[in-house]
Amino acid sequence: MDSPTVRRCTSALCFATLGLLASREAYAQSETVHGVRSYRTSHEVEIVEELVEFLSLPNNAADIPAIRRNAEAILEMMARRGIEGRLLETDGAPYVYGELEVPGATRTILFYAHYDGQAVDTSRWVGHHPYEPVLRDDALEAGGQIIEFPSQGRFENDWRIFARSASDDKSPIVAIMVALDAIQANLRKPTSNLKFIFEGDEEAGSPNLGFVAREYGDLLAADLAIAADGPTDPSGLPTMKFGARGIVSVEITTYGPLRPLHSGHYGNWAPNPAMRLAHLLASMKDPRTGRVLVEGFYDDVVELSEFERAAIAAAPNDDAERMYALAFAEPEAQGQRLALINLPSLNVRGLRSAWVGREARTVVPDRAIANIDLRLVKNVDPREQLGRLIAHIEKQGYDIVSEEPDPETRRRHPKLARVVSSDGYPAYRTQMDLPIAQALISSVEEHMGQGMVKIPTSGGSVPLYWFTDVLGLPTVSVPMVNHDNNQHSPNENLRLGNLWSGIELFASVMMMR
Amino acid sequence: MDSPTVRRCTSALCFATLGLLASREAYAQSETVHGVRSYRTSHEVEIVEELVEFLSLPNNAADIPAIRRNAEAILEMMARRGIEGRLLETDGAPYVYGELEVPGATRTILFYAHYDGQAVDTSRWVGHHPYEPVLRDDALEAGGQIIEFPSQGRFENDWRIFARSASDDKSPIVAIMVALDAIQANLRKPTSNLKFIFEGDEEAGSPNLGFVAREYGDLLAADLAIAADGPTDPSGLPTMKFGARGIVSVEITTYGPLRPLHSGHYGNWAPNPAMRLAHLLASMKDPRTGRVLVEGFYDDVVELSEFERAAIAAAPNDDAERMYALAFAEPEAQGQRLALINLPSLNVRGLRSAWVGREARTVVPDRAIANIDLRLVKNVDPREQLGRLIAHIEKQGYDIVSEEPDPETRRRHPKLARVVSSDGYPAYRTQMDLPIAQALISSVEEHMGQGMVKIPTSGGSVPLYWFTDVLGLPTVSVPMVNHDNNQHSPNENLRLGNLWSGIELFASVMMMR
Repeated sequence: MDSPTVRRCTSALCFATLGLLASREAYAQSETVHGVRSYRTSHEVEIVEELVEFLSLPNNAADIPAIRRNAEAILEMMARRGIEGRLLETDGAPYVYGELEVPGATRTILFYAHYDGQAVDTSRWVGHHPYEPVLRDDALEAGGQIIEFPSQGRFENDWRIFARSASDDKSPIVAIMVALDAIQANLRKPTSNLKFIFEGDEEAGSPNLGFVAREYGDLLAADLAIAADGPTDPSGLPTMKFGARGIVSVEITTYGPLRPLHSGHYGNWAPNPAMRLAHLLASMKDPRTGRVLVEGFYDDVVELSEFERAAIAAAPNDDAERMYALAFAEPEAQGQRLALINLPSLNVRGLRSAWVGREARTVVPDRAIANIDLRLVKNVDPREQLGRLIAHIEKQGYDIVSEEPDPETRRRHPKLARVVSSDGYPAYRTQMDLPIAQALISSVEEHMGQGMVKIPTSGGSVPLYWFTDVLGLPTVSVPMVNHDNNQHSPNENLRLGNLWSGIELFASVMMMR
Repeated sequence: MDSPTVRRCTSALCFATLGLLASREAYAQSETVHGVRSYRTSHEVEIVEELVEFLSLPNNAADIPAIRRNAEAILEMMARRGIEGRLLETDGAPYVYGELEVPGATRTILFYAHYDGQAVDTSRWVGHHPYEPVLRDDALEAGGQIIEFPSQGRFENDWRIFARSASDDKSPIVAIMVALDAIQANLRKPTSNLKFIFEGDEEAGSPNLGFVAREYGDLLAADLAIAADGPTDPSGLPTMKFGARGIVSVEITTYGPLRPLHSGHYGNWAPNPAMRLAHLLASMKDPRTGRVLVEGFYDDVVELSEFERAAIAAAPNDDAERMYALAFAEPEAQGQRLALINLPSLNVRGLRSAWVGREARTVVPDRAIANIDLRLVKNVDPREQLGRLIAHIEKQGYDIVSEEPDPETRRRHPKLARVVSSDGYPAYRTQMDLPIAQALISSVEEHMGQGMVKIPTSGGSVPLYWFTDVLGLPTVSVPMVNHDNNQHSPNENLRLGNLWSGIELFASVMMMR
């Protein structure tokens, strides 16, 4: 892997972590990877041209005609590689599907990525339109200047392409295609049959993924799915994520008097909904341990295997450095962040009641609102977890309504809470000790000449349970882009060193033993 | 008292309360009151003209030239009654001071009121400019229409004058002047020497009251002060309030990470300031009893005397009706509202952390804010009460700062709270069993032929401790205006029946035995 993105270290602990990286760099890359690299170094201009052309297509998922132009472009990219492609139509954006049968292969790998991008606020992009890619000689924060795309020769690893979806998630699609080119240019062939599924409305929350899984389950059948999305570990080390948290969100409203009351005339007598909410929230978590006190909250959690625990222990532990950067002294719960992410969480996302600051008024508020998200881990069902929270609220003496209560309802119930929840979706986690997972890990580490950061559960939520739990597809996320890519934000970018290593990474997957 | 404002009853309890009123109406008014009434019924046009002229003067405390025109007008009103007047200059609005020595009188009563008004939002006044008084034939909510001011004859009790300060607080000044006219027209003289002090920046929080008390203490010396401000009891019964709560407000900010973090990647690990705030607030109050758990919170409370407890017991108890109107099922603490107001309170006025509702985002918030007011009762010092709250926060493990903490400070303290407080001021309460208070009560009840509602402590806060605690002046608030007067709001109004009874009330005070 060409010089990975190296964080600027500010703590002793960080340098210790990078020591780990250095020792791993002593591994030798495989012949395959050498061949892929050699192909890439002599084709950098063409590779970047293909990516830039792809990035020039507007890809907001809400703009279906624009989105279709992207899908057509991917069909052409696949056709150039001899991949048989078609569109899978949905109510929204089409999925692009492709197959490459490899003579003699007995195993099938499905590559997943998405070609749609977040909406753009052009006014906040520096120096260019988000659909007109530019090359800079460094990160924007490091003073990177716009330079011309070279028409021949090499690109520096630290140069970056700035455009919407440069990192999220078009460059992995190009890297996958180029990986195949490089393998074939070296007169080899992938060791597995390959399938490709590229989604067009991931940024809208994958509303059609369930439909596609149900309707085209046969097409998607494979022994392993590789999700090529998201950033690598901040250490810059190549990363595999074997799962992601699920999520369900809940808004709780407690009620006081029908309208805000004068706190002099009524304070001490009219029930204060903000204080009630405080008691209700406080009942949900042990402040010393960070443990959620909702009954049954951890009941369905599947313990991590020894293998998974070892993977976390071996991953770079940058907790202390993150705490420094985020300026807090102690975490909420004891333990390593990467381990804690494998527990379900209850997080207060927001609070609202009457007014604070210069707008504060002498009132007893009429209501108080808390918005909460419950992050889920493998085997914890969103509805059941929500049910546990609701049972907990009832156990605190609350009657629960789902609609805004009328005055008569408010008069009838001493403690009343409105609870509104999102549908949510479950977590997924592919067991690291499955033979296919073990084969993937050892093959890629051997090819890359480097240990991977292996994370049982990633913190963010993606609905890949459709692959794992519905289609029974072992799914592993193999990200390639730089962690500081401004994903979803203005000035999204891809560091070219990450594109180069991504090509090697996907080639390693395609050549897994 | 001419037909007092009668609430529309919706509960059996309310009718029971008004039964009390009916029995009290059987009392006979004194000859003095009869004489005052007779004077008034033949001078209603002139009385209203004087009030309307006064209300036509803009009186926003921020507009000093306008405020001075009001002060000059009061000097003229006093001069017409033979009251020797002068202005007491301050850094802001002048106070208007006046004296009327009564030959043979051995006692002095000081009347207090204020002549400034809240700022006006003219766009929200219906049908006229707030400084151009109009007469309506009923409350606006009851469909009251603008009618011409009669140039002779009588006014209906339910007619109302709409203008800024019609109720708060210019009409009491006129009522006091007219009470004196009526007494003198009946060839009598007040039984006490009279002093008058009219404030010009009460709505700005009485910033100069302390200066005046210190600088002009001798001028203000009296045996009794009567504060003529605020509305009567909603029952419409004549009311005396012997005290008011003090107040100090506090804003508490708890801290999480330096910026809002992704709740998937960090939820369960980064400390959540909203949950911390919930635990902190919850530690302050027993949810079952409503009792504040801050150590020493009730230590300095002076128990109500038997007399004061009896007064509360005799006052109309409209708790059930208020609960019905305000649509809640149970009060926060057990007990009658009027009794609870004699305890210090801790009220959460507002909460803020990140976002809720449609704006909710999947974050661990960076901070959470609670704004609190502490209402104070007699003998509880604002600084000491604030000190107790701060000690309580520290006891929960928090280090406290007063300024926004920098990252280094946040890194150093596992639990950090920013606490910012207002200066606040103490409560006042005149003992009801003082001889002067007893004389006032019995004289006025006898004159008016009616039992008064006697409230030891009013819920709202006014800084009259300058009179009671600094000048040693027994002070009683004797309000006269209708409770539904839209004080501080658009369409402020005075019900004329209340003006008429106010004149009788102040005459009764001037003629106290």
